[in-house]
Amino acid sequence: MQYYRMPYEQAGKLCRAVFESYGFDAVQSAAIVDVLLAADLCGIESHGVQRLVRYHAEINSGMVDVQASPVIVRETPLSATLDANRQMGQLASIDAMRRAIQKAQATGVGMVAVRNSNHYGIAGYYAQMAADQDLIGICMTNSEAIMVPTFARQPMLGTNPIAFAMPADPVSFLFDAATTVVPRGKLEVYKKQGQTVPDGWILDQDGNGSNDPTLVLDNIIEKRGGGILPLGGTGETTGGYKGYGFGMICEIMCAILSLGTTSDLIYGNKDRAEICHFFGAFDYGMFGDKAEIKSALSEYLQKVRNASLAEGQPRIYTHGEKEREYRVDRSLNGILLNEKTLQELRNIATEQSVDPSSLDLVIPV
Amino acid sequence: MQYYRMPYEQAGKLCRAVFESYGFDAVQSAAIVDVLLAADLCGIESHGVQRLVRYHAEINSGMVDVQASPVIVRETPLSATLDANRQMGQLASIDAMRRAIQKAQATGVGMVAVRNSNHYGIAGYYAQMAADQDLIGICMTNSEAIMVPTFARQPMLGTNPIAFAMPADPVSFLFDAATTVVPRGKLEVYKKQGQTVPDGWILDQDGNGSNDPTLVLDNIIEKRGGGILPLGGTGETTGGYKGYGFGMICEIMCAILSLGTTSDLIYGNKDRAEICHFFGAFDYGMFGDKAEIKSALSEYLQKVRNASLAEGQPRIYTHGEKEREYRVDRSLNGILLNEKTLQELRNIATEQSVDPSSLDLVIPV
Repeated sequence: MQYYRMPYEQAGKLCRAVFESYGFDAVQSAAIVDVLLAADLCGIESHGVQRLVRYHAEINSGMVDVQASPVIVRETPLSATLDANRQMGQLASIDAMRRAIQKAQATGVGMVAVRNSNHYGIAGYYAQMAADQDLIGICMTNSEAIMVPTFARQPMLGTNPIAFAMPADPVSFLFDAATTVVPRGKLEVYKKQGQTVPDGWILDQDGNGSNDPTLVLDNIIEKRGGGILPLGGTGETTGGYKGYGFGMICEIMCAILSLGTTSDLIYGNKDRAEICHFFGAFDYGMFGDKAEIKSALSEYLQKVRNASLAEGQPRIYTHGEKEREYRVDRSLNGILLNEKTLQELRNIATEQSVDPSSLDLVIPV
Repeated sequence: MQYYRMPYEQAGKLCRAVFESYGFDAVQSAAIVDVLLAADLCGIESHGVQRLVRYHAEINSGMVDVQASPVIVRETPLSATLDANRQMGQLASIDAMRRAIQKAQATGVGMVAVRNSNHYGIAGYYAQMAADQDLIGICMTNSEAIMVPTFARQPMLGTNPIAFAMPADPVSFLFDAATTVVPRGKLEVYKKQGQTVPDGWILDQDGNGSNDPTLVLDNIIEKRGGGILPLGGTGETTGGYKGYGFGMICEIMCAILSLGTTSDLIYGNKDRAEICHFFGAFDYGMFGDKAEIKSALSEYLQKVRNASLAEGQPRIYTHGEKEREYRVDRSLNGILLNEKTLQELRNIATEQSVDPSSLDLVIPV
């Protein structure tokens, strides 16, 4: 597929204009687009501008309520439970993580569970918000059921990502991973390219291994059974019940604590997504001198990067390093958009009466 | 290998006498043995009586200090950092989790990081302590480096288990898993039986896949490189960097927060293990009505257990269910010990001048 470079600032300007056209104010639009483009900057194409077509549909159908603001269901000095009232996921999430950060700054710990929200982009964005305030940040979300529990054929959990961030020099530790073997977006990429997927990723409608992403994605939409395997793969031999367990922890922290909707029922009402999130922040200074702790992490990460390489491997990465290198490149040289995403962006801009002419300036790569 | 059933109470009596013979008082000995036999009761043989030979050596060498008591390095209403002063891992850990629970009962959250400790048994035991108090419990530990980071040949992390427990009816959610594909004990079992291990578990000294547990265990002891793969396996195709990331989170919570020793240096001093742990407890009542939340979890777990089965599979388990069924059986019919473990127990008892005659009453199965 043909890819193009678009300067970050121009992509931002165009996307902000699109979100303002839906009725979000300038501050809200900038916040949503900051999360959206953070994915493209970090090389997580599946969660960037290519999601705009989904947000466009969900805003137009009323699944996302542009006028909504979250309400506090319960609050303590250390915690809050919010009902997002179908607000745009990014807005509810920035708000929730800010509350968690404020609580952590005041008490040491802040934990916020959110229900009745929408898709929120990349989990790592919110974990990093806490790390930017010199805290440890944690973020999770549930999502439409696609993970098949060990020995099942029916998906009962979402891809249920878990993110964890802690400041370090020269590059923070930033972990952000679906608890399935791969995220759904990866199947969509293979499908678009007409390719089969590797063994150990997906199950067909009978719960048997499959290599056909089209079959499995269609089965998910039609609720015929099958889906993506938990991290660790099939059965128990390579630890699939562990990925399933991490997915359950995510489900508990997001949907159970908030008394929200579990992944098996998400998008069950056609007009509501009902996605649930969890945001945690805590001050690692509770445990010792912050400079010493941060330096201990920085040194350990460096030791890991310097470990002996496996035969034929050029480099060991610590989590967040690749994303930072993508960010440097793409801030300077533009984000990468494929022809299909560009066309979607052009269609949406036109439909929303937003000037799409900056798209004429993209450069093929 | 021949297995035998030994009544739980008799095994407990014998093991308590052994620990008292080292100089632990009756309360301490009972606490240590409660953790030890909890593993055998739950079917986690690798962490039960068969570990006694290791504890025996570590106590006799002085690596474990029988007289030690932990000191508080730092404390806040929500947190503590403890130096275990080479205390028996189980004692330092019960003490630390009790502190986390008390803090959670007083404030909502308790987090305790421990450094300079010893092997502590099963992580799930301590997470369950919090669940028994109607809290959510979290527990992690680092350990001697055996996990090879993605693209490396050198082990830099331990098996780094993560445990998470929350009360539910009729059976709690209790997750307890190494962040490697398998724990070290599993390799030892295959080695004893002279079997090769499945693909995707271990790497040889060059960082290439291996099926030879003897080679890999010897390499670990001789520090020649290689070890166990992170959950998710080799490279990036099936998400090995995710298991490596969960292992890093464990390392941060245990060794970095406590300013203790990271897994790559554990057992680096011949006379000290320097293992680090983390204990967390929080009151889920901070987020809403406890009865409602517990009931939401119980219902969701039941739904997962009732999901459609994969072809040819008899049952879906939720985490903690298998362990509870083992516990019912073994409380009633005795714990299972193999001939080698029985012989080790007899030797240790004899060496410690403890009457081993109850071992004559075990029943072959």
